[in-house]
Amino acid sequence: MSRQPAPERFSLNQETVHQWSLPELVAGCTAAGVGAVGLWREPVRRFGVRAAAKLVAGAGLRVSSLCRGGFFTAADPTGRAAALEDNRRAVEEAAELGADTLVLVSGGLPEGDRDLVRARERIVGVLEELVPWAAAHGVRLGIEPLHPMFAADRCVVSTLGQALDIAERFPAEHVGIVADSYHLWWDERLAVDLMRAGAAGRIVSVQVADWVTPLPEGVLLGRGQLGDGCVDLRAFRELADAAGYRGPVEVEIFHPGLWARDGAEVLGEVIDRFRAHVG
Amino acid sequence: MSRQPAPERFSLNQETVHQWSLPELVAGCTAAGVGAVGLWREPVRRFGVRAAAKLVAGAGLRVSSLCRGGFFTAADPTGRAAALEDNRRAVEEAAELGADTLVLVSGGLPEGDRDLVRARERIVGVLEELVPWAAAHGVRLGIEPLHPMFAADRCVVSTLGQALDIAERFPAEHVGIVADSYHLWWDERLAVDLMRAGAAGRIVSVQVADWVTPLPEGVLLGRGQLGDGCVDLRAFRELADAAGYRGPVEVEIFHPGLWARDGAEVLGEVIDRFRAHVG
Repeated sequence: MSRQPAPERFSLNQETVHQWSLPELVAGCTAAGVGAVGLWREPVRRFGVRAAAKLVAGAGLRVSSLCRGGFFTAADPTGRAAALEDNRRAVEEAAELGADTLVLVSGGLPEGDRDLVRARERIVGVLEELVPWAAAHGVRLGIEPLHPMFAADRCVVSTLGQALDIAERFPAEHVGIVADSYHLWWDERLAVDLMRAGAAGRIVSVQVADWVTPLPEGVLLGRGQLGDGCVDLRAFRELADAAGYRGPVEVEIFHPGLWARDGAEVLGEVIDRFRAHVG
Repeated sequence: MSRQPAPERFSLNQETVHQWSLPELVAGCTAAGVGAVGLWREPVRRFGVRAAAKLVAGAGLRVSSLCRGGFFTAADPTGRAAALEDNRRAVEEAAELGADTLVLVSGGLPEGDRDLVRARERIVGVLEELVPWAAAHGVRLGIEPLHPMFAADRCVVSTLGQALDIAERFPAEHVGIVADSYHLWWDERLAVDLMRAGAAGRIVSVQVADWVTPLPEGVLLGRGQLGDGCVDLRAFRELADAAGYRGPVEVEIFHPGLWARDGAEVLGEVIDRFRAHVG
């Protein structure tokens, strides 16, 4: 490629190039001068966690995040125990990969449940058991607020303020927050809450994607390429910087249009867009 | 119908039974003992505003709201002037119908614009010119916060708190807020902001719809029948009551599944659901 290497703080989330296998991801990132990747549990487990860790470390790649633990909101003891158990495995995987953070998507409302307040409180309950496990494994947990359109079925933590309210019940070295522009761009309290997070050393991951409309059915796979939408991504990154964040800025775009193209071409475009719009 | 008449505070928004013409709506509501309707400008204008006013008043129906004015966020003078002009017409129509409130959907970000703060401020700018017109016509304006998933393309006012921040720059007798469960259910500040709105006498309309997933493409037509989703509708209505609201509770569901059925059957079901879930 004739392009310059990726900016130093650039990280590529694996799901942005869903079409790539793990070896393709590692080779593609190496070729493009990318220094960090965000990984997902499913493809890592399919490849083998140990083998994946070896592959990624062997290429000198930093793992900026592992997605994802969470789904803590089950109201029944069986569901709760299963969630805790699965999250312990996720912590072990994050430890083996040397990931900066294990991203937590907290979970939606159980079927028939209409009580957001209690669902949010159940998250704290599971974390009280999970955090010592994560601490013992040297893994930092990152609570990710998801856009309010996911409050029912994926994550009852909808704002950065709510994520911090939960994180702050635990030591900052073990629990922080994940700030993703796609989920947070609309919130007028974003700047204040990012400052609050940064001052406490709780920004454990920063992710970027753009907001484009119309949203597709199910709304999950409608994220926009950087610069295609209405999010001021540079202002978002500058806010995180101003709050004291110095880590990788991970590009996480779920979009079938990107997945249908050549992975190297997509990565090249993402890097160019990152340079132009995130800076 | 063997059903009991609709509860006293029940109001039917016209778009819930999109398949009905205006005369069908009036006849159907009369037959079901419904005392109030929410109307939309387009079907009213097609029928003729004066004729619609006469038809509705002749049947003894209260007009709980007229949807909608708004779309104030144009950054160019031409777009701004057109919005103001259109809203003056909307005020006149609301006055002719004797509507309790003219619902305002404030507008999204103009193409290429990424500045939510300035877009929100432009809303205030247009309202400064519109409010005297509304006051002169005896029409009360209701700023409706829309769910954050509409922030880009429909309404940069995403929370009740933001709607109040704008409304409070104007006298309460002229500008209030519209609280719709579909848009606000996820917000942990809802109770506090409803109290703030009620204490100032600014709740001008209360609407209900349920939240169901998955959301359809475009997300506009995915509202759920009362009781089908995860919103605690009774708690929502009780919060509005506790805040001092005593007006109609309007059912506004946009869903092609309801539109495909017999209107009277839909209305009967909506009333039953209202009794069971809103109370």
